[in-house]
Amino acid sequence: MNKEEYYLENYIKPCTEVSELFPQEIGDDCAVIRSSSDLLVSTDSSIEGVHFPANLNPYYIAYRSIAIAASDILAMGSYPDGYLLSITHPKPSDKWFDDFSKGICAFNNEHNVKLIGGDLSKGHLNICVTIFGAAKQNIIKRSGAKENDDIYISNTLGLGAAGHKSFLGDDMSMPNQYMKPELITEEVIYKLNELINAAIDVSDGLLLDLKRICKLSEKGAALSVPKQAICNDYEDLVAGDDYVLLFTANEKNHEQIAALLPDSKIIGKITKEKKLRVSNSNGKEINFDAFGWDSFKT
Amino acid sequence: MNKEEYYLENYIKPCTEVSELFPQEIGDDCAVIRSSSDLLVSTDSSIEGVHFPANLNPYYIAYRSIAIAASDILAMGSYPDGYLLSITHPKPSDKWFDDFSKGICAFNNEHNVKLIGGDLSKGHLNICVTIFGAAKQNIIKRSGAKENDDIYISNTLGLGAAGHKSFLGDDMSMPNQYMKPELITEEVIYKLNELINAAIDVSDGLLLDLKRICKLSEKGAALSVPKQAICNDYEDLVAGDDYVLLFTANEKNHEQIAALLPDSKIIGKITKEKKLRVSNSNGKEINFDAFGWDSFKT
Repeated sequence: MNKEEYYLENYIKPCTEVSELFPQEIGDDCAVIRSSSDLLVSTDSSIEGVHFPANLNPYYIAYRSIAIAASDILAMGSYPDGYLLSITHPKPSDKWFDDFSKGICAFNNEHNVKLIGGDLSKGHLNICVTIFGAAKQNIIKRSGAKENDDIYISNTLGLGAAGHKSFLGDDMSMPNQYMKPELITEEVIYKLNELINAAIDVSDGLLLDLKRICKLSEKGAALSVPKQAICNDYEDLVAGDDYVLLFTANEKNHEQIAALLPDSKIIGKITKEKKLRVSNSNGKEINFDAFGWDSFKT
Repeated sequence: MNKEEYYLENYIKPCTEVSELFPQEIGDDCAVIRSSSDLLVSTDSSIEGVHFPANLNPYYIAYRSIAIAASDILAMGSYPDGYLLSITHPKPSDKWFDDFSKGICAFNNEHNVKLIGGDLSKGHLNICVTIFGAAKQNIIKRSGAKENDDIYISNTLGLGAAGHKSFLGDDMSMPNQYMKPELITEEVIYKLNELINAAIDVSDGLLLDLKRICKLSEKGAALSVPKQAICNDYEDLVAGDDYVLLFTANEKNHEQIAALLPDSKIIGKITKEKKLRVSNSNGKEINFDAFGWDSFKT
């Protein structure tokens, strides 16, 4: 058994589980997906020094990398079912894999999601997660926003940035949205699926992600952001790393949405005019120089 | 538009194509797969300095990374339909992406395979390919080998190692099996699917990969390797990086297999006794110290 097989066999295989959708045990050249509906699929790499700091506990490296990928399935109005892991590590050890596999199991148990396969190679630490979710009812796209839709965020903005700051300040007293992103539940996303018109997850900053919805929907947006929608400052509108859901819905659905997502906030309206206007709670327009996080930005 | 979007929009999107199986254009949070049969899926990372040398032309980095992942679908007796790319690059440029995207398009055109989505992040050069193929007829597993099956390789062993050596010696006069791995065609794999019992692709070295078949099939193997099955030396049996298909089949299928794969060679028999014996063309037993390539081996 070579080292790759040793770590996969001892730490990754115990985190896997067969199911109706994923009927085959790990250990062959491919995994098998038996889906009777359309399948949503997304791939996301989390890289040490770029997406997470070098000293982050491997438990959170695993949890966070999977959560970030899972967030893309939620952004299409469905829920993740399973995923593949491609792990690149410069010098794996039993200690590292023990912590990492605990993060995998925690995510899987908390979200009823299955790890279905993966590989391990030598290289700079890089966790590539490819995640699958059976599409339910509607597939919610970025292009679905309608004029006069309310614009929502599923939770307060800035929790990711605040969590990152706490971590850098050595305050690891509790897992936060940066280390352990909290996602919308399966029950909620399926109900929300029938109430919303467009969605995206806030990974690169609210304004940049909203611009993507506007561009593909051929609309604009007028934002009026209440203080309680942000946890620090208006900088949270470009901070990113939040992994909350940004979505639009007809105003007639407001009561049902508020009941499903008590922490959600309406932050504006979709407009016919293809412009993005942002005003603070006093109605004063805000100017932003930076529109979102760019991993290539120096 | 940030840099990630710039490169994806200008170089990756033009390589994508919608189809019945992949009905959605790139640009949302997820790709969509509309499959009516079981789906085979595999993920593989190719890393600069580990799986390919730093000075390899990006055209071949793309081609080779996709081919290596595709090889896993062939190893289950099916043919790849589409794939996702997660590209990590320290400092992308138009020149790099121009060459890289030409390698993608070349692979796609030559193999009738679609790129369906992907992402780009900053980091050490790492190409993570997640590939999908609709399962046809039988799913060929590593565990299917039967006692007395003939053991085949689809092509000569050692072409990968020889190609790597040529490349290091600056002989880039022609693309070779290392830079541009040649795969079995769609037509051939579907016919082969009904004739073979077990398969794996030779990525880590023939002996190590054969051991995997033996272990999961609860069998052994007696190899008697003819000179024409190897291109350099018996070292080719552990060299790896060949991406030829190693498979087993009942001897009654020999004529049909030989007609389908004229370059294939029988190199031994599956045995009831759970041992791996290797003899050269004169019947003399060969001892191997190293069993296959291990990216963690120092």
